[in-house]
Amino acid sequence: MDEFSFINSIKQQTYKQSSVVKGIGDDAAVFRNTSQDIVTAVDTFVEEVHFSRATMDPFHIGYRSLAANISDLAAMGATPAFYLVSIVIPKHWADEELTKLYKGMDNLATIHNMDLIGGDTVSGKELSISITVIGFVSKGNARYRSSAKPGDILFVTGTLGDSQAGFHILNNPGRFKEKEYYYNKHRMPEPRVAFALELGSLSRVALNDISDGIANEANEISEASKVSITIYEDKLPTSTSYKQFPVKLQREWKLFGGEDFELVGTVAKAEWEAMKLVAERTNTPLKEVGYVDFSKSDEHKVFGVNQKNKKKLLEKKGYTHLE
Amino acid sequence: MDEFSFINSIKQQTYKQSSVVKGIGDDAAVFRNTSQDIVTAVDTFVEEVHFSRATMDPFHIGYRSLAANISDLAAMGATPAFYLVSIVIPKHWADEELTKLYKGMDNLATIHNMDLIGGDTVSGKELSISITVIGFVSKGNARYRSSAKPGDILFVTGTLGDSQAGFHILNNPGRFKEKEYYYNKHRMPEPRVAFALELGSLSRVALNDISDGIANEANEISEASKVSITIYEDKLPTSTSYKQFPVKLQREWKLFGGEDFELVGTVAKAEWEAMKLVAERTNTPLKEVGYVDFSKSDEHKVFGVNQKNKKKLLEKKGYTHLE
Repeated sequence: MDEFSFINSIKQQTYKQSSVVKGIGDDAAVFRNTSQDIVTAVDTFVEEVHFSRATMDPFHIGYRSLAANISDLAAMGATPAFYLVSIVIPKHWADEELTKLYKGMDNLATIHNMDLIGGDTVSGKELSISITVIGFVSKGNARYRSSAKPGDILFVTGTLGDSQAGFHILNNPGRFKEKEYYYNKHRMPEPRVAFALELGSLSRVALNDISDGIANEANEISEASKVSITIYEDKLPTSTSYKQFPVKLQREWKLFGGEDFELVGTVAKAEWEAMKLVAERTNTPLKEVGYVDFSKSDEHKVFGVNQKNKKKLLEKKGYTHLE
Repeated sequence: MDEFSFINSIKQQTYKQSSVVKGIGDDAAVFRNTSQDIVTAVDTFVEEVHFSRATMDPFHIGYRSLAANISDLAAMGATPAFYLVSIVIPKHWADEELTKLYKGMDNLATIHNMDLIGGDTVSGKELSISITVIGFVSKGNARYRSSAKPGDILFVTGTLGDSQAGFHILNNPGRFKEKEYYYNKHRMPEPRVAFALELGSLSRVALNDISDGIANEANEISEASKVSITIYEDKLPTSTSYKQFPVKLQREWKLFGGEDFELVGTVAKAEWEAMKLVAERTNTPLKEVGYVDFSKSDEHKVFGVNQKNKKKLLEKKGYTHLE
């Protein structure tokens, strides 16, 4: 397939978003939004670095790549609207596989009412997918990592470690409970868009999505907000059958595993009940897992309190060299 | 250098655009523009496919990659505002080289008052740079390929073939006139932003930037506008010393060479004088090189009229398989 035919094959015939002025087919896309702030992010995923066909079908690769990007929009409290896909295609990827990869993105995009409005397709030695996402948030209402304040409750959505557990099962075939559940958590994560949007009714929320493990994300909030954060490791939410994995891996995955694309954040005690109502309305598991410190120390760190009630520094991990 | 230090090293300390609400440092960037339409495009450049360090320094690679993207904004009549850079970095690229690559982008961005508001840095086997650009255009005033009408004048800015000529000299060292001039045209092309913006005063202009050669770009206008276009090959503007190259290459480069990032388009005869004034005001070489056909034929093609006054079909070329 040449580039022209390929673009035609993935081009949407109609656009869901009324703000599209010009979609695919010119030098650039055009959209209009005069009432809201515009939120944008880009992420790149490289074969054998971020994913492998040994554990994922092309459909999953597309789905998960877009999910990671949508999760960034959710972490800003933004409504997803558009995506642009730039892809480097090596010769060993067949046309049908590429079509499936785009199908995976399209599948998730449809759930979130997103339109594909641009992109680029080029040749190269290894497959890499760059996705730019664009979303909208009401003026001045974007949610930042820098909004945490001493006394806040630390919360997290969903369950942690499931994505890594799924990856573990895929790489270590054997007898495991709820295999399909963990596969899905790894291959088709669900960014917490509905919950994040409903938080718009709260006056202040610090928000981050868990792409690199809660310890890292809490560190990012801690640094940006200039506060210290304490996490009760035992309170971290995990799936019922998560206990089947070695204890050491359980801790590793839930604290540093990442790619669960759940949300972690902080909220004032006064608004905790309101947040719980948002969680109920959007059918989102929500749990209090720690607190923001009142300490006057200049050190902005994250601490973990373990089973034995020992408090230890939780440093950034899993934040490897340029990966 | 780890990812964190690297991002810090390229992060702008201040933002030039007043529309920035949140730059680099959260899950996504936020900006606000309530009065204009938003224009966005993405392009990816892969080492040894789109550029080589044999003919370009890292500075040039960065400069030229961003230039190609800015050119897309110019072709829409949009004012450049932001860019996001997602880069796949192989081990053999040194930190200093990467820094120079970003310097190249920053250099051109500064000329156009653009801010770097986001990106991603990941590991991989080959260097590839994905740049997302965002610009603004007054509501409903984006310039499309689909606006050409029979009777229009076909115009082009600058000179054609110079980028390919520069590439030729770099690959075939020898005695050539004005080497530096051609090197620069290849390595540091100047997108025609000022000219494109001033065209806002005209009522209708079809516009495309020359990334793949004027024959291809004219074909895109022809298809999108459902018209036929005739190009007088002898009228195509070239540099004075362009005659030093073999006649066959001269024709090949100016028609199919691409990467000059000049603008090609069509304008009503009634507005041709106004366009010439815009060219004068913005110091932009502008030339009439053909016309849009009055024919009622359903066939939307591009024809070239050669030296011997022979009219021949100019098909798409240089539009290789997924490059």
